[in-house]
Amino acid sequence: MSKQQIGVVGMAVMGKNLALNIESRGYSVSIFNRSASRTEEAIAENPGKNLVPTYTIEEFVDSLETPRKIMLMVQAGAATDATIQSLLPHLDKGDILIDGGNTFFQDTIRRNEELANSGINFIGTGVSGGEEGALKGPAIMPGGQKEAYELVAPIFEQIAAKAEDGEPCVTYIGPNGAGHYVKMAHNGIEYGDMQLIAESYDLMSRLLGLSVDEMADIFKEWNEGELDSYLIEITADILTHKDDETGKPLVDVILDAAGNKGTGKWTSQSALDLGVPLPLITESVFARYISAMKEERVEASTKIKGLDVQPFEGDKKELVEKIREALYFSKIMSYAQGFAQLRIASEEYGWELNYGEIAKIFRAGCIIRAKFLQKITDAYANNPELKNLLLDEYFNEVTQKYQKSVREVVALAVQAGVPVPTFSSAIAYYDSYRSADLPANIIQAQRDYFGAHTYKRKDKEGIFHHDWYTK
Amino acid sequence: MSKQQIGVVGMAVMGKNLALNIESRGYSVSIFNRSASRTEEAIAENPGKNLVPTYTIEEFVDSLETPRKIMLMVQAGAATDATIQSLLPHLDKGDILIDGGNTFFQDTIRRNEELANSGINFIGTGVSGGEEGALKGPAIMPGGQKEAYELVAPIFEQIAAKAEDGEPCVTYIGPNGAGHYVKMAHNGIEYGDMQLIAESYDLMSRLLGLSVDEMADIFKEWNEGELDSYLIEITADILTHKDDETGKPLVDVILDAAGNKGTGKWTSQSALDLGVPLPLITESVFARYISAMKEERVEASTKIKGLDVQPFEGDKKELVEKIREALYFSKIMSYAQGFAQLRIASEEYGWELNYGEIAKIFRAGCIIRAKFLQKITDAYANNPELKNLLLDEYFNEVTQKYQKSVREVVALAVQAGVPVPTFSSAIAYYDSYRSADLPANIIQAQRDYFGAHTYKRKDKEGIFHHDWYTK
Repeated sequence: MSKQQIGVVGMAVMGKNLALNIESRGYSVSIFNRSASRTEEAIAENPGKNLVPTYTIEEFVDSLETPRKIMLMVQAGAATDATIQSLLPHLDKGDILIDGGNTFFQDTIRRNEELANSGINFIGTGVSGGEEGALKGPAIMPGGQKEAYELVAPIFEQIAAKAEDGEPCVTYIGPNGAGHYVKMAHNGIEYGDMQLIAESYDLMSRLLGLSVDEMADIFKEWNEGELDSYLIEITADILTHKDDETGKPLVDVILDAAGNKGTGKWTSQSALDLGVPLPLITESVFARYISAMKEERVEASTKIKGLDVQPFEGDKKELVEKIREALYFSKIMSYAQGFAQLRIASEEYGWELNYGEIAKIFRAGCIIRAKFLQKITDAYANNPELKNLLLDEYFNEVTQKYQKSVREVVALAVQAGVPVPTFSSAIAYYDSYRSADLPANIIQAQRDYFGAHTYKRKDKEGIFHHDWYTK
Repeated sequence: MSKQQIGVVGMAVMGKNLALNIESRGYSVSIFNRSASRTEEAIAENPGKNLVPTYTIEEFVDSLETPRKIMLMVQAGAATDATIQSLLPHLDKGDILIDGGNTFFQDTIRRNEELANSGINFIGTGVSGGEEGALKGPAIMPGGQKEAYELVAPIFEQIAAKAEDGEPCVTYIGPNGAGHYVKMAHNGIEYGDMQLIAESYDLMSRLLGLSVDEMADIFKEWNEGELDSYLIEITADILTHKDDETGKPLVDVILDAAGNKGTGKWTSQSALDLGVPLPLITESVFARYISAMKEERVEASTKIKGLDVQPFEGDKKELVEKIREALYFSKIMSYAQGFAQLRIASEEYGWELNYGEIAKIFRAGCIIRAKFLQKITDAYANNPELKNLLLDEYFNEVTQKYQKSVREVVALAVQAGVPVPTFSSAIAYYDSYRSADLPANIIQAQRDYFGAHTYKRKDKEGIFHHDWYTK
């Protein structure tokens, strides 16, 4: 019996679609699922495909060419460990396990190390693009043993999304947890992008009184310029959808309580651990949390009154353009923070990340795909040691040019009572980052005063403590 | 040989001062330190005190009345586990270990459970007030077995700080990790308070050009009103200190790079885990991180220019009063978030926290001690089920009254290029919390669009998915 070239464990929609994607590139694929029904379903739905169903772990492992290439598409967490444990007795040294779930990077570091002790290669890979992406071409972020990745690289390069220049959206990210870390950071950035769009919509709706249809046109127009991106594109489309039952714009009946799957939270928690300022993404996580407190907010809205605000009487079109500039400015702050986080994480975990390559593979397939990612690639091509995107010429110029708009928009929103947590966080980051002096001298003085925590001086080296209690 | 009433392990400054505090209330105290020199030093420095030195763990444990009461004042983390392991073989059932370090609450939950299996009581207690507080009267936040706490309560009530009404600043907080959690949240609030003061100082300095002396007077004045608190008081004092060498105000030579010991970070990470919005404290943690990037900021300041800003030409005194109102407003936002976090943590971990009592013990001894904490106690006395301080009558009224000032101050700062991350975060929280509708409908639509994550509707129950791809 001939052996298959690759196996996929887990026939939920992501696993099934990824298996079909691989098969469509001319590979034979063994599939396995803990419950047989999903395997049968996958086969029944896809007649004539080179998918080989298997119904026991032994049969599955046996059906594969060696060194075996096995993709795990199961729920991140305990199910991943359980699947690995069930496979392990049947594997041979040199086999390659590839975890394509949304796994916490520390788990991937642990598994990579444990399996290496048994001679098994373990690749943790981010897969972004949702169900559609898995089927037609996702962005792929693999981390783990480089020599093992080389063996699956031809497959990954074929199934990955292709950027406009034809390059596949996959590249070796780095050792052990690097791929899952980059996927996590990608998702954090996604949270920021989505919240920035939501605030822009809110300003146009609450401050300018624009209709959903008008906003659909605006987002469509925005998608043709600097903001050209998947999320802007789908927002424009979303705003054109009507609710079948009520005939209202669909967004007007959707409850404003955002869910989350935890990857944004992880990104913020990691930044907190690494000592990296990541305020914009973190504000966007908190904005989801506060949105989820719907009942409490409705109650509060009846008890807490804002100021009486005059309706906006300026030029609406002009303000829409300022909001666009504020959005682009803030998006740049978010990516500057996110890529600074990648740099510090790379140093902390010894990953030697290539930031330009990472931006490059985000150009297609994934949720944050956008034209402007090319600018990030260019920035790192100009200076691979770049500490912060804001120090790159292009980003420096465009943010200096747009700062006036974001300042005006935030000032207007704050005075009108429309919450703009990420817009205002963006300008605070910008102004903090470009401040040679911040008021943290006061904080250091306080810490030395109540806790003898010592301080440094501006004018000379050393560690100092002042005797605050006797003058 | 007569036995001592309590023992203290760890003779660094906090342990030594706490031992002296206990001794000063008429107790006999055994002391022990891993290296004998510190024990000898403590004895030599304090002749005639009822401190009994011991030099082996056996001798130390043997010297104590049963059930033994042993305070661990060692560095939080591995040293705590090591000390517990060294004590354990010598302890008897019913003995009480009290960890007074700045311990992560999850460690306390774990240790409490493990020791309970051996019949040993374990109390994790927050001790706030720095070295001075440890010696003269700290705020104390004990969590663990209630019946064990009752046995040490008489000692703790004597050594604790006393509020103006004479009540000791200690109360039983709750089971296992509750005490250390509340101490952590206290520290998070402290980060927020300190950053708010720093931003106020920065505005008065950069925007108004006030001198350090003028600001010292202003903080002194503020300390006589609603803002009456330890941190405002010491800030006023700090600003009067001159550098011996240069004759400059000391704050002008202190490097603006804030350190941290991690408790603020823990507070934010816990909020992220619990799904509680805690933007203000988190922005204050990130503000410390960005302050620590001094070299990078100095470089950035030469490359990134803000707008040309006209000097402030309005009434300076009026603006100072607005900054005061903005500070009080923002402080209330921070405490509203912090106490909401305590409520959710209490539900999550089954602690049944008493929020009014917690505010009460913060009134003296600890770093965040302030007159306004009485208002929090009053709010929970009026309504023990209060979901958020902003729904309390006093806090609602004062924040509605002061919102105009914080809006003006933020608008002015943002347009002038002075970073106000926590002030602007405060107003964003206020406006989000009082918004019946937020733009998270857009986020839910996007999530359903690219990931089929489903959404709820405003007009009826249920979980919905829209087919976005066919109109």
